[in-house]
Amino acid sequence: MTTTGAETGLPSASLATAPVAPVVPARGARRMLGLGEVTITGGFWADRQRVNGEHTLSHIGDWLEREGWIANFDLAAAGGLPQGRRGREFSDSEVYKYLEAVAWEVGRLDASDPARAAELEQRADAVVARVAAAQQADGYLNTMFGREGQAPRWSQLEWGHELYCLGHLFQSAVAWQRVRPTSHKEIVEIARRSADLVLEAFGEAGIQSVCGHAEIEVGLAELGRALGRPEYVAQALLFVERRGHGVLADIEWGRSYYQDDIPVREAVVLRGHAVRANYLAAGAVDVAVDTSDEDLLTALVSQWERTAERRTYVTGGQGSHHQDEAFGEDWELPSDRAYSETCAGIASIMFSERLLLQDSGENVARYGDLVERTLYNVVATSPQADGRAFFYSNTLHQRVPGAVSDPDVVSPRARSALRAPWFEVSCCPPNVARTFASLAAYIATADASGVQVLQYAPARIATELSPGRAVELTVETEYPARGVIRVRVDAAPSGPVTLSLRVPAWAAGASVRTITGDETPSQSRAVETGMVSVTREFAVGDVVELTLPIVPRFTAPDPRVDAIRGTVVVQRGPEVFALESVDLDGTALEGADFADLFVDTSVALREVGSGVTAGVTAAVRRRGTSEVADVPLVPYHSWANRGPSSMRVWIPSS
Amino acid sequence: MTTTGAETGLPSASLATAPVAPVVPARGARRMLGLGEVTITGGFWADRQRVNGEHTLSHIGDWLEREGWIANFDLAAAGGLPQGRRGREFSDSEVYKYLEAVAWEVGRLDASDPARAAELEQRADAVVARVAAAQQADGYLNTMFGREGQAPRWSQLEWGHELYCLGHLFQSAVAWQRVRPTSHKEIVEIARRSADLVLEAFGEAGIQSVCGHAEIEVGLAELGRALGRPEYVAQALLFVERRGHGVLADIEWGRSYYQDDIPVREAVVLRGHAVRANYLAAGAVDVAVDTSDEDLLTALVSQWERTAERRTYVTGGQGSHHQDEAFGEDWELPSDRAYSETCAGIASIMFSERLLLQDSGENVARYGDLVERTLYNVVATSPQADGRAFFYSNTLHQRVPGAVSDPDVVSPRARSALRAPWFEVSCCPPNVARTFASLAAYIATADASGVQVLQYAPARIATELSPGRAVELTVETEYPARGVIRVRVDAAPSGPVTLSLRVPAWAAGASVRTITGDETPSQSRAVETGMVSVTREFAVGDVVELTLPIVPRFTAPDPRVDAIRGTVVVQRGPEVFALESVDLDGTALEGADFADLFVDTSVALREVGSGVTAGVTAAVRRRGTSEVADVPLVPYHSWANRGPSSMRVWIPSS
Repeated sequence: MTTTGAETGLPSASLATAPVAPVVPARGARRMLGLGEVTITGGFWADRQRVNGEHTLSHIGDWLEREGWIANFDLAAAGGLPQGRRGREFSDSEVYKYLEAVAWEVGRLDASDPARAAELEQRADAVVARVAAAQQADGYLNTMFGREGQAPRWSQLEWGHELYCLGHLFQSAVAWQRVRPTSHKEIVEIARRSADLVLEAFGEAGIQSVCGHAEIEVGLAELGRALGRPEYVAQALLFVERRGHGVLADIEWGRSYYQDDIPVREAVVLRGHAVRANYLAAGAVDVAVDTSDEDLLTALVSQWERTAERRTYVTGGQGSHHQDEAFGEDWELPSDRAYSETCAGIASIMFSERLLLQDSGENVARYGDLVERTLYNVVATSPQADGRAFFYSNTLHQRVPGAVSDPDVVSPRARSALRAPWFEVSCCPPNVARTFASLAAYIATADASGVQVLQYAPARIATELSPGRAVELTVETEYPARGVIRVRVDAAPSGPVTLSLRVPAWAAGASVRTITGDETPSQSRAVETGMVSVTREFAVGDVVELTLPIVPRFTAPDPRVDAIRGTVVVQRGPEVFALESVDLDGTALEGADFADLFVDTSVALREVGSGVTAGVTAAVRRRGTSEVADVPLVPYHSWANRGPSSMRVWIPSS
Repeated sequence: MTTTGAETGLPSASLATAPVAPVVPARGARRMLGLGEVTITGGFWADRQRVNGEHTLSHIGDWLEREGWIANFDLAAAGGLPQGRRGREFSDSEVYKYLEAVAWEVGRLDASDPARAAELEQRADAVVARVAAAQQADGYLNTMFGREGQAPRWSQLEWGHELYCLGHLFQSAVAWQRVRPTSHKEIVEIARRSADLVLEAFGEAGIQSVCGHAEIEVGLAELGRALGRPEYVAQALLFVERRGHGVLADIEWGRSYYQDDIPVREAVVLRGHAVRANYLAAGAVDVAVDTSDEDLLTALVSQWERTAERRTYVTGGQGSHHQDEAFGEDWELPSDRAYSETCAGIASIMFSERLLLQDSGENVARYGDLVERTLYNVVATSPQADGRAFFYSNTLHQRVPGAVSDPDVVSPRARSALRAPWFEVSCCPPNVARTFASLAAYIATADASGVQVLQYAPARIATELSPGRAVELTVETEYPARGVIRVRVDAAPSGPVTLSLRVPAWAAGASVRTITGDETPSQSRAVETGMVSVTREFAVGDVVELTLPIVPRFTAPDPRVDAIRGTVVVQRGPEVFALESVDLDGTALEGADFADLFVDTSVALREVGSGVTAGVTAAVRRRGTSEVADVPLVPYHSWANRGPSSMRVWIPSS
């Protein structure tokens, strides 16, 4: 760690004062504001963060102990492997993701609840010490390989997940490095030693192959950024470039499963396993950016475009296949077999957010739109209200009510059931946890001219546009229940500053006005979708107020999506709504066959209640009868919280 | 073999003169006419039988050798297992199915080409000798289990397929027993010894479990019938009754995968793995019939009803899931992920045909309809025109043209590709082969009062309704190209005889007339769909002529099937048609995006050409343009015979 940012091409800001954020590229159009700069102070996401911090983290920690996935490291240290090992080949990674989640949570609580932050840090340190004890002298770290009775190191790249696990270790180390930049955390040292070994084993002259599950790319690149080690970024680039040339074995589903069919820079769309594809794309953006590889970046942008248009559910979910957890072909988006893995949604956010940071301006809002859509309708859908059970896949159509999961039993991921406490493959719970804990970093970005507010939540934002040019903002909103977003200036430098806000693609009819102390409020002006900006010399107390039309709306599907022809979806703001059979109770349609219902789109959707509890009702009819009922729809993210139910997002309209 | 039919409750006809047919129940409303009684003399199915006999059988025999699946038996005999073993755990069964196919082919050729029949028999005998050498002293026979270095016998019932393999051995032995009832074929002795061991191991006091893949039930029941061993039928009943009580381990997809979730007699619909479900149902009909268990039979009839209505594709295909090769829920029938495994179609025919033999009359035609639909649109679809490559699954919507399979390379079953020569799991090719070779047995049934013609092909039928009451018929038809079916009487007993013909459910407007030598032809009379019968004292030369309306028709989907809302399918007679992108070439739509096309249903379908080469064209339009073209549609069974193509069966109609 003797190199400095200036020598490495990394940002000239000291590594020790990098934003407390998951992505800090060497260059870019705008930078993420980190956890020290943004605090979510209330509303939808603050609730999620609170439940995550109070319940989910300990829930995950408990299950990791209970299933022996942390104890695997103890066994490794004590010579108890392979006999005593429990869990699948990638179980180490869940421990790393948990540690990453705790890091961000510590960062989130540092200012508001330092006692709790210290307690969490101590708990994480104890786990890290157990991981450290398992690391071998040369830096090798994996509980599944390399010992007597185990397969040799790097011998099963297709399915072994060794490099995948390290990628998660590196992301975890990055989080701790940024949250505690001066503390010399042990996990950072573990990661550094492992990364050095990876470079030795897989460098230019090393094993000419890649991991069957991309993740090391994004992990190595960010570790390189966080530690000022450009050679890590270079190794990530090597991995990105090697893939796609058939370096891995052909398998039943073809090499497209792990994106080894086509080189990244030649591909035109994401394909194969949806989590693998998005992790790879995110890592490829990282290396393209840090190496100024415009061709690669352009290729990734166009892959994002086609994937967003043709291979993404209305919820933001990705991956249509249960069999191989993979994207389907263009327009292959069946509701009833939507796999839409929670982790694929998170991975897609990682990909979108990285492009957002690089975009010259035109597409910033589109990336932000998909991030928002996916946050509300995939990531927020996964956890139960109590934060102790999760959807692994997120179907858009539940024909037969699923079974209630036993809160004390590990669930198979493929089974049709309500949210479950833990899975044999339990990637999703810690992935949700690390995303929620770091969510503040997705709220806003900044460049030298101002701040871009991209996701809406009550929040405090405090940053410097450049040394000495501090900006402090307070965001007040009841979003997504209501469409008014007020950005109040609490501090601003002299000279013009630009405040930009995202106007989502669904928000036709949005308007903005400026309210300042020394003049009457500006006339509200209509704004196009995209980014809207107000540039002026702001005074304390000035407000930029954006009003988005939060009204329920029907949306017809793209006619090329066969599976939902003749249906509509109800949305309000960023939220997708669902018809749940439990809501037929007490209506004229109680007990009706769910397959016989359709929505009468000639009857306007109606809002009932107000504020955050406002709901939407639709006129639902039963085929072959004159029966009709005004049926409440629920936000998709809150479905299946009232017991087993049939459910559909796309509702037949005739 | 000392028991006689009379003692065992089996038909009083001597076992040695049982019909040369796969299903000969102890009782029933009508009996299959066997290969000695029915010969298909020309047309669609005779072509398939010829290609099957001339090419497919040797193709299969060659691949079984090449992959070492027959050599596994040699290794077993020579002590070379487990080291040298090749193939999956169920590879023995493919050898048995091949031997069964050869048996039926020998039966088919006995009269017309005895030299070829003898040659085939000799070839089969040689393979059987190799199988025999692998059988252990106590009758145990499986190349995967029980030796040093292998898992113990019966230790992996969930996935081991030991009993499944034996079920296929038994069906093969049944075929040889019926084709060569007096020859004491070695395979019959092998099967008898294996069956006796199964009874010892799994009898009342034996292992209280079942095989993860049903098949032993239908095999044991028929072997019991063929050899006059009612205890085999009783054992099959034990297996049927045991299943459904959670006797097998729970697995990721749940016990419904192998029908161990609900007892057969309590189930309301087929579910889980579609081949397993249908094999089980077929075996359950067998034991229900032979033990006069009306409750069980009633349950199976109602399972068939719901499955046919709600879980069956328009092609007759069953099984919507790639992941677990399973049925979906009711109405879950996506075209683009239709698995519709060839073997599931064959298994469904086995189930339907067994119910047909038992039905009191009302539903005979409906069972025959589904058999026909499945034969033309699943079984006939699988093999390539040359009989040397096969579809494993039968999608109804190919978005992106599949890859051409290398005729020299084993294919993974799940890959989107054209027909392939052989698969790692190669159940389908020999299953198709045994079905084609025995197809004559599905043409007609008989009871004491007459003959029921159920499937239409040029054929000669000769049987005795009862001792001394011989009937001989010639069926003349160009079906399915043309709808006239003439059944000419070549011999008939004195007294009234009933000739019955199936009028398919799609054949509204069908008519029948009788043409006799001594009177003017009877007035053609309109007949309802179902079975139509003519009862009279027939003279030689009399003709019953049925005319079915073979005209192309649009059919709209059931509105409860989400995946095909807003589409139509084109059918003509029993054939389902498909739109194939290669047929856009040379039209105004050449090069158009396949996803943008829809059919203009206001323009009548048009027949072009005549006779067996007659085709159908439809007016196809391109969304967002005024482009339109008259595009030929192809029978679904012949799609993908002209290279890679996009294809769809259900075509958007707006």
